Amino acid sequence: ARKSDHQPAGCSVNFPVSVVLPAGGTGERTGLLTPKQFCSFLGRPLISYTVQAFERVPWIQRIVVVVAKENVDLMTDIIQRFQHRKVRVVPGGSTRHRSICNGVLALGEGEEEERPKVVIIHDAVRPFVEEDFLYKIAMAAKEQGAAGAIRPLVSTVIATTQEGYLDHSLERAKYRASEMPQGFTYDVIYQAYQRCSESDFEFGTECLHLALQYCGTNAKLLQGPPTLWKVTYKRDLAAAESIIKETLSGTACVITGGSAQAVTLADALQKAVGALDTELDVIPDLLGENARYLLKESNFIQVSVNGSSLSEVETLLRDLEAVNQAVLHPLVVIWMHLSTSDELSVSGRAVEPAAIMDLASAAKLQNILLYGIQLHQSKDAELWERSVLKVAEITSALIRERSPALVGQLLQA
Amino acid sequence: ARKSDHQPAGCSVNFPVSVVLPAGGTGERTGLLTPKQFCSFLGRPLISYTVQAFERVPWIQRIVVVVAKENVDLMTDIIQRFQHRKVRVVPGGSTRHRSICNGVLALGEGEEEERPKVVIIHDAVRPFVEEDFLYKIAMAAKEQGAAGAIRPLVSTVIATTQEGYLDHSLERAKYRASEMPQGFTYDVIYQAYQRCSESDFEFGTECLHLALQYCGTNAKLLQGPPTLWKVTYKRDLAAAESIIKETLSGTACVITGGSAQAVTLADALQKAVGALDTELDVIPDLLGENARYLLKESNFIQVSVNGSSLSEVETLLRDLEAVNQAVLHPLVVIWMHLSTSDELSVSGRAVEPAAIMDLASAAKLQNILLYGIQLHQSKDAELWERSVLKVAEITSALIRERSPALVGQLLQA
Ligand SMILES: [Mg+2]
Ligand SMILES: [Mg+2]
Repeated sequence: ARKSDHQPAGCSVNFPVSVVLPAGGTGERTGLLTPKQFCSFLGRPLISYTVQAFERVPWIQRIVVVVAKENVDLMTDIIQRFQHRKVRVVPGGSTRHRSICNGVLALGEGEEEERPKVVIIHDAVRPFVEEDFLYKIAMAAKEQGAAGAIRPLVSTVIATTQEGYLDHSLERAKYRASEMPQGFTYDVIYQAYQRCSESDFEFGTECLHLALQYCGTNAKLLQGPPTLWKVTYKRDLAAAESIIKETLSGTACVITGGSAQAVTLADALQKAVGALDTELDVIPDLLGENARYLLKESNFIQVSVNGSSLSEVETLLRDLEAVNQAVLHPLVVIWMHLSTSDELSVSGRAVEPAAIMDLASAAKLQNILLYGIQLHQSKDAELWERSVLKVAEITSALIRERSPALVGQLLQA
Repeated sequence: ARKSDHQPAGCSVNFPVSVVLPAGGTGERTGLLTPKQFCSFLGRPLISYTVQAFERVPWIQRIVVVVAKENVDLMTDIIQRFQHRKVRVVPGGSTRHRSICNGVLALGEGEEEERPKVVIIHDAVRPFVEEDFLYKIAMAAKEQGAAGAIRPLVSTVIATTQEGYLDHSLERAKYRASEMPQGFTYDVIYQAYQRCSESDFEFGTECLHLALQYCGTNAKLLQGPPTLWKVTYKRDLAAAESIIKETLSGTACVITGGSAQAVTLADALQKAVGALDTELDVIPDLLGENARYLLKESNFIQVSVNGSSLSEVETLLRDLEAVNQAVLHPLVVIWMHLSTSDELSVSGRAVEPAAIMDLASAAKLQNILLYGIQLHQSKDAELWERSVLKVAEITSALIRERSPALVGQLLQA
């Protein structure tokens, strides 16, 4: 029996699949000087997010990124900096088809048994492609020779007269937008590029069209999710950043140190932050089983009760640096200082602001964003509730915004 | 001679123009429960931004917003809350065409001389339409009977076989995406709806098509800017928010109080923040001519040297509340406290954090976001430069992010 779409696809792909990512675009349409695939958010260029989307799929073997000659060094640096492992950089040609063709030829070099059975072609500026859809494309490509993602048309398509007037509008239901990824057997895409004309290389953009015209292969079309959209304009970079930020802020881990007061705060926070869309896991420490949080969590809240020592948060920072999880995205660490004695509440702060600022400056170099929040445990239930709500709002904002400018601040709840 | 595109278009439109905004959509595609036209960013629903885009055009007379019956009250509240003046709410029909038709009929009620010559139809979820493009559409509609915005296709359009295979791809250059706004003479759009069939009302969406089919009017097609894009998915809301935030953070006004030390800080800040894309105007106070900043500026930085009084910022808040500029978007006020004596640097803070927090809580109710930044004027040039850079980064982040959760915080530079 065929596996259902929702099962992990990993083990079902028993043939070699590799990827060509044309990334030669100049990004005119973003209104930015940097080509959009090299524009960064959260400290990382878009192309690295796209590479990561493929790299994490176990059955994808190699990824060829095709960039303009002048960007080969830049791309090589990106691969090193973000520790990508499956990637090879290939210089592009003067058009999109020439670049994709270079990528396909690069996959064909070497021994015949190293050649992929299926080649997936994708845009460098569509970072949110997911494994289940790649699986569908790969399977359909193997079966049909070619497969491509489609989406419903979002606007009516119209034909214009030469003078710029409406000629007629197309019936929307009969047409689709052709998107990426597309998949081909190596033989089909290789033959298509062998047989196509100079004019195809120069003016064409649609690989599915070449497969049809030169190999007689009618591609299987699969409706993709809206997340396949292409980062085209500057606003799309903001949209992509917000998606990444939302993904990173879904959960956080509260470390209580085991103190009863910290647990009470964590429980109250859990409810309040839950209403703001971040789920909290409350744990006493990161020992034993709980060490797994160091590998999977992007947001940590270290609760300290009284005392003015930053030693717990220093330990946490050391642990996080040791597991090297901040390479791909900034981690957030919030030091939450709960004071319970009246004495501390009078002085207003228990910790010298300079100490946390220094610690934060050092952590920032490791891509860890450290913030502090200070609150006082009032005996007045209403005041306490208000404080917890405030802490929750601040926590949620820090985790969502991941603002590098505000690291080291000791905020008041 | 014809006016150039870049002159203000206001005085050239000497015929009545009104607007129909169909806003009946259910917003399924955003993945949100609220229809997208009612989703808020910076505290204001999308539909209000779109209404504002038309309301600020002096030659546009009336705006009819067509909403589903169950949203009439909600829309009426929005109009009151954001003090819209040209708007009438009309209940929609069961399809897009029926809703637009209701809007057109509403504009035709009353005396014949009140009827618009040209009706502009636009989507509630395209908030960034600009006056110069509306001018072009209105003029072309008056001349040709109908006019519509087009955009180049972003994807290849393909025809599919019934079995879901590629049939053929369209030659991209011959086709365009039909977008909004569209303009019609009242007579053309009225006749088109009088003559069209039940099937058109039920299944059609394209007004240009009705004008062609029922009035023989070939619409003039005008290429619109990319900012006309339609807020369709949740990510588009993030993109729209980022555009609004960028617009709001382009400039800020620094009020020095005239002190030499404050002016030195403001000048240093001007350079540093300039590198971060916010332009600063430095003024001693808001008296006389400078009172105009209260009406046009969205970001204020009040510098205080030594002393721990918040009285200057209290005055500023009162002035801002008096001019009522925070109705449409949140204003940012940053109280920047510069301490110069060594004594103050030892205690760490000159102001009781609770005082600024209380002030900020009250200001927030007026849609004014108050933050504090404290810095010490070091005699060491290197330390001072570092402080200024830090202040600039924090200032820029506060102005850009406009985070309600962080109001009342006294940040350290
Ligand atoms: Mg293609
Ligand atoms: Mg229409």
